[in-house]
Amino acid sequence: MNQISPVQTDTTPEPQPHHPDLRRVNANPDFWYPVAWSSDLRKGKTLAVSYAGTPIVLVRPEDGSVFALYDRCPHRQVPLSKGTVNGQTVRCCYHGWAFGRSGRCIDVPYLGKGKLPNGVRTFPVREAGGLIFVFPGNPEKADSTPFPKLAQTDNPKYKTKHFSPRVNCHYTFMHENLMDMNHQFLHRRQMGQIKARFLGQDKGEDFIEARYSFMRCAGQQPLAERLIFGKHKDLQGKEQPVEEVVTIRTEYPYQTLRITDKDGDLIMDLWTAYVPVDKDERITQSFGLLSILRPQTPFLIDMIWPALGWFTNRIFLEDKDIVELEQAAWNEVGYDRNVEIFPVVKALRELLIRSGIPQDMPPANTAQQPATPATPA
Amino acid sequence: MNQISPVQTDTTPEPQPHHPDLRRVNANPDFWYPVAWSSDLRKGKTLAVSYAGTPIVLVRPEDGSVFALYDRCPHRQVPLSKGTVNGQTVRCCYHGWAFGRSGRCIDVPYLGKGKLPNGVRTFPVREAGGLIFVFPGNPEKADSTPFPKLAQTDNPKYKTKHFSPRVNCHYTFMHENLMDMNHQFLHRRQMGQIKARFLGQDKGEDFIEARYSFMRCAGQQPLAERLIFGKHKDLQGKEQPVEEVVTIRTEYPYQTLRITDKDGDLIMDLWTAYVPVDKDERITQSFGLLSILRPQTPFLIDMIWPALGWFTNRIFLEDKDIVELEQAAWNEVGYDRNVEIFPVVKALRELLIRSGIPQDMPPANTAQQPATPATPA
Amino acid sequence: MNQISPVQTDTTPEPQPHHPDLRRVNANPDFWYPVAWSSDLRKGKTLAVSYAGTPIVLVRPEDGSVFALYDRCPHRQVPLSKGTVNGQTVRCCYHGWAFGRSGRCIDVPYLGKGKLPNGVRTFPVREAGGLIFVFPGNPEKADSTPFPKLAQTDNPKYKTKHFSPRVNCHYTFMHENLMDMNHQFLHRRQMGQIKARFLGQDKGEDFIEARYSFMRCAGQQPLAERLIFGKHKDLQGKEQPVEEVVTIRTEYPYQTLRITDKDGDLIMDLWTAYVPVDKDERITQSFGLLSILRPQTPFLIDMIWPALGWFTNRIFLEDKDIVELEQAAWNEVGYDRNVEIFPVVKALRELLIRSGIPQDMPPANTAQQPATPATPA
Repeated sequence: MNQISPVQTDTTPEPQPHHPDLRRVNANPDFWYPVAWSSDLRKGKTLAVSYAGTPIVLVRPEDGSVFALYDRCPHRQVPLSKGTVNGQTVRCCYHGWAFGRSGRCIDVPYLGKGKLPNGVRTFPVREAGGLIFVFPGNPEKADSTPFPKLAQTDNPKYKTKHFSPRVNCHYTFMHENLMDMNHQFLHRRQMGQIKARFLGQDKGEDFIEARYSFMRCAGQQPLAERLIFGKHKDLQGKEQPVEEVVTIRTEYPYQTLRITDKDGDLIMDLWTAYVPVDKDERITQSFGLLSILRPQTPFLIDMIWPALGWFTNRIFLEDKDIVELEQAAWNEVGYDRNVEIFPVVKALRELLIRSGIPQDMPPANTAQQPATPATPA
Repeated sequence: MNQISPVQTDTTPEPQPHHPDLRRVNANPDFWYPVAWSSDLRKGKTLAVSYAGTPIVLVRPEDGSVFALYDRCPHRQVPLSKGTVNGQTVRCCYHGWAFGRSGRCIDVPYLGKGKLPNGVRTFPVREAGGLIFVFPGNPEKADSTPFPKLAQTDNPKYKTKHFSPRVNCHYTFMHENLMDMNHQFLHRRQMGQIKARFLGQDKGEDFIEARYSFMRCAGQQPLAERLIFGKHKDLQGKEQPVEEVVTIRTEYPYQTLRITDKDGDLIMDLWTAYVPVDKDERITQSFGLLSILRPQTPFLIDMIWPALGWFTNRIFLEDKDIVELEQAAWNEVGYDRNVEIFPVVKALRELLIRSGIPQDMPPANTAQQPATPATPA
Repeated sequence: MNQISPVQTDTTPEPQPHHPDLRRVNANPDFWYPVAWSSDLRKGKTLAVSYAGTPIVLVRPEDGSVFALYDRCPHRQVPLSKGTVNGQTVRCCYHGWAFGRSGRCIDVPYLGKGKLPNGVRTFPVREAGGLIFVFPGNPEKADSTPFPKLAQTDNPKYKTKHFSPRVNCHYTFMHENLMDMNHQFLHRRQMGQIKARFLGQDKGEDFIEARYSFMRCAGQQPLAERLIFGKHKDLQGKEQPVEEVVTIRTEYPYQTLRITDKDGDLIMDLWTAYVPVDKDERITQSFGLLSILRPQTPFLIDMIWPALGWFTNRIFLEDKDIVELEQAAWNEVGYDRNVEIFPVVKALRELLIRSGIPQDMPPANTAQQPATPATPA
C-alpha cells in the first residue's frame, strides 16, 4: 500500500488552535436520526429517548401515528414519558397537565379552560424499516432533508438483522473504526488471519467511500462466513484471493458496508446510524440494519441465522471494546493525539468535521453550548 | 378553581439575575433541626450525622445528656465519631486525643498537661418526641429560637408513626410537593381518583397555609383510608363529598398536614422537617411524625397500623420518585424552569426564598446553559 | 514527652499562600519506583501499570529482560498492553503497528518499510528483590540515581514477606502514619495497650529518622508478636519495658522500619515505597518487603508465617481505613487543616515538601472554602 506517506510521530501532536478537535464536533441535528425500534413502542404507550442530551418522548396513540414531544412538562419539568396516553394526548403523571400531538397544552385539571399555559416543543417523526426516526434540528428543514435508504429492508430477496448496541464513545470513532479495514488484525481470533487490500476510494462533499478485497493468509475460515460467501478452496497455506468486494461508505451522517460477489451481485448490505445520547456526545446509540441475500436453498439462511448473530456479535464486542479504549485515552489527555497515516481515514475525518457542528471552545470542563436549541414547532 | 389565573408559558423562563434560583437557596441554619432518632444513639456510643455538609458527632455518655461536636479531630481531621466514649469525653481513634462536652481538648496521651491544643466547635442539642435536634447556626440564637410542636407525640389520645426517608433532592421540592394537593393524580393507583378542592389560604411573614377538601370521582376507597376516616356512602358514580378538611402549613422551616373531621376534631397530625445533608443541599434527610387519633375501639388502631404503614409508604415512594425526577431535571439545565400557576405554591416559593440563605453565585462549573430551552408550541 | 510544645488550635489553619499544601505536592519522578511484582509478568506477556497517571506497559520477551514503553500506540492511543509480544517487539492489537524495545516503530502491516512512523517513549527498568522498578522521570538521571537497598531480600538469614496494598490517599499520609508511632492507640485491639516512648531523632537533607521503644500498659501480648520477639514477663499490671528499638526512617522517597533487639541485632526490616497511581496522586500503590530474622529453630518461622500475615494484615487494614478518612476530610475542605504538634512529623512534612514537586496552583473548582470553619472551644 505504497500510496500511504507516513508521518513523523516524534513530537506529540498538540491541540491545534485553528482546527476543531474531532471529538469536540457535535453531530449535525439537521438530519433524520433513528431513536428507537418500532416494536419497542406499543399502542397507547410512551417511550423516553434522547438525542444529544435532549429528552424526547415518543407517543403512539391507540389510533394514529407516532408523535414526539420534548420530554419535560413545562410545569415542573417532570418527564411526560412517565405519564398516560389518552386518545391523541399525553398527560403528565404529576399534576395531570395534558398535551396534544401539536405540543399544545389542552388541559390542566384544576384550571379553567379559558387560558391554558402554552405547550412543549414537537419533533418531526417518521417510521420506516422497523425504526422510529426523529428530526432533532430545525423542523422547517425536515421535509426537504433526504430520508436514507435502509439497507434492503424493503426487498424480499434479503433477510435483515437488527442491531442496536450502545457504545461509550464519540460517534466519530465508530465511523473511523469501520472505514479502516486494516483493523482486521483486531478480529484475528474471529476471522482468522485476513489482510485487507485497498482497491480505491471515491469522495464528494458529503460522502467518502473505500473499496477493499480480502486475502486470507492463514487460519480457518469461520463457519458463518463460509455459509454466506461459500467455501474458498484451500491453497495449503498460500494466500487465497477472496473475490468479494467490500465497499464502505460514510454518507453523512450514515454509514454503509456493502459486499458484492464476483458477479457484482449485492450479497450483504449493512446500514448504520450513530446517534449521540448525551449532551457531550460521548455516548453513542447505534442502530444497524444488516441485510443478507437469501441463498437459493431457501431454508439455509434460517439455519445460519443464529450462527451469523453470534459471529457478528463477537466481532462487534471487539470493536466496542476498542473504540471505548480510544475514548478513554482521549478523556485522559483531553484532546485528539491520533497520528493518522491512511488517506481514506484522513479524508473521513475532514468530512466529519465539516459536516458536524464544532463545539465553540474546549470548555474548561463542561461549560458548553446548549445541546439542542429548541425551535418553534 | 377559577381563582387561578393562568400564565403564559410561551417564553422559557431564563435565570433571573436579581432573583435567587429557588434551588440555590440554602436552608437557614438558625433553627432547630432533627438529625437522628433518639433510639439510634445508645449510651456510651457516638453517632455521625450531617447538616448541609457539616459533619457532626452526637455523643451519649453513660450518664447524662447527649452532646454534639464538630466531627473532625483538629489534629488530623479524622472523624471523632470513630472514637471511644469515656465518661463525658470522646477520644479520637487515631492518636487518642480526647475532647469534653464543651469541645475542649482535655488529653493528648503523649503530651504534658501544661498546655493542650484547643478543641472543637460544639452544637446546642435538644431531645424531644423521639428525635435528637441540633442548632447548626449561630449558637447564641439557640435559646431564643422557638422549638417546634411535634405533632401529638405528647398526647396519649394519639398514636405516632416515625418516618425518616432520605430523598435525593433540594428540600424545597418537598415543601412544594406536599403543599400542592392538585398532585393527587400522581397517587391515583393508591388513592383512587380523588380531586382536591381548594378552600382557602392564610399567610404571614414566616408561614403559609392552604386548606383543601377532597372529592372522590371514581375508584375504590383504600382500606387504610376507610379505617381511619370511616366508610363514605357509595353514590353510584356521583362525586361523593369527603367532609374532612386537610390543612397544609409550612411554618418555616417545618411543614405540617392536619386533618379535621366534620366536627372539627383533629384526626391526623403530621409534622415534618427536611434537613439538608450535603453542602450543595441536594440531598434531604426527612424526619416525619404522623399522629393518628386512636379510635374509640382501642385495639382498632393496632390492627390498621401495618396497613397504614404500607399505604403511606407506597404513597411516599411515589412522591420520592417524582421529586427526584424534578431535581434531575434541574441538574440537567442548571436552573429552575418551572412554570408555576397555583398562587399558593407561588407564595410558598417566595416564603422559602426570603427565609433561606441564597448561595452567593452559581459556581462557575455548574452555571451552564440550558440543555434544551423549550419554546412555545 | 515534654519536648513537644503544644500549639494553639483556636484558629482554623487557612491555606498558606506561600507554602505548598502538602497534599498538592507530587512525588518526585526522578527516582526508581517499583510498579509490579516480577512474578506478575510472565514471559511473552505484557503488563499495564501506571505512575501518576502515566500509562506504562511492561513487556517481558520470551528471551531477554523486561522493557517498558509508554502504554499508548501513537496511531490511535490504544494501550499497547492489549497487544501481542513477538520476539523483542510488542504489536498493537488494533491495526497491528509493532514497536521494539527502543520504542521505535518497526512495522505497520499495510505500509511500506521506507519510512515508518516514529515510536513511543521508553522508561529505564530494573528488576530486583522480586520487584520491577521503572524510572519515570528524566531518563538521563536514571543511572546516577541510587537504587534502594531492599530490606534483607538478599540475605538468607531472613525470610521476606511481600505486601502491595492500594490505598485511596495521597502518598504523604502513608509516610506520616508510619512515622508517628503515637498512633498505637489505633491498633489497641490488635496490639493490646502499648505506649510508644520516643527515644530520639536524626535528620538530614533527604531523610528523617525517629527511634522508639514500646511499653505494654495492659492487654495480652499477641501471639505473632510473642513468637517473633519472645515472651515478655508479666509484671501484673505494671508497665513492662520492651527492650527492642524501633527505627523508622523516611529516606526520600522510600520508608523503612527496622527493629533491633536488646543485643542490637536486626530482627525485622521493612522497606516500603508509595507509588502514586493517578494524575492527582490521590491513589497510592504501596509495595512492601518485610524481612524477618529466621529463629534458631529453623521451622519456627514457617509455623508463624501465616499468623504473621494475618496479624500484619489486620493492622494494615486499620491504617488503610484511617489514611483514607484523612484523604476524605481533605477532599471535603480542599486544603490541609491538620494541627501537628509532634516535631518529628513536622520535620517529615518539610522533607516531603522540599523533596517533591508542588502542583502549580489549586485548580479553581477544588480550591474551595471549608464546609464548616470550626470555631474555638
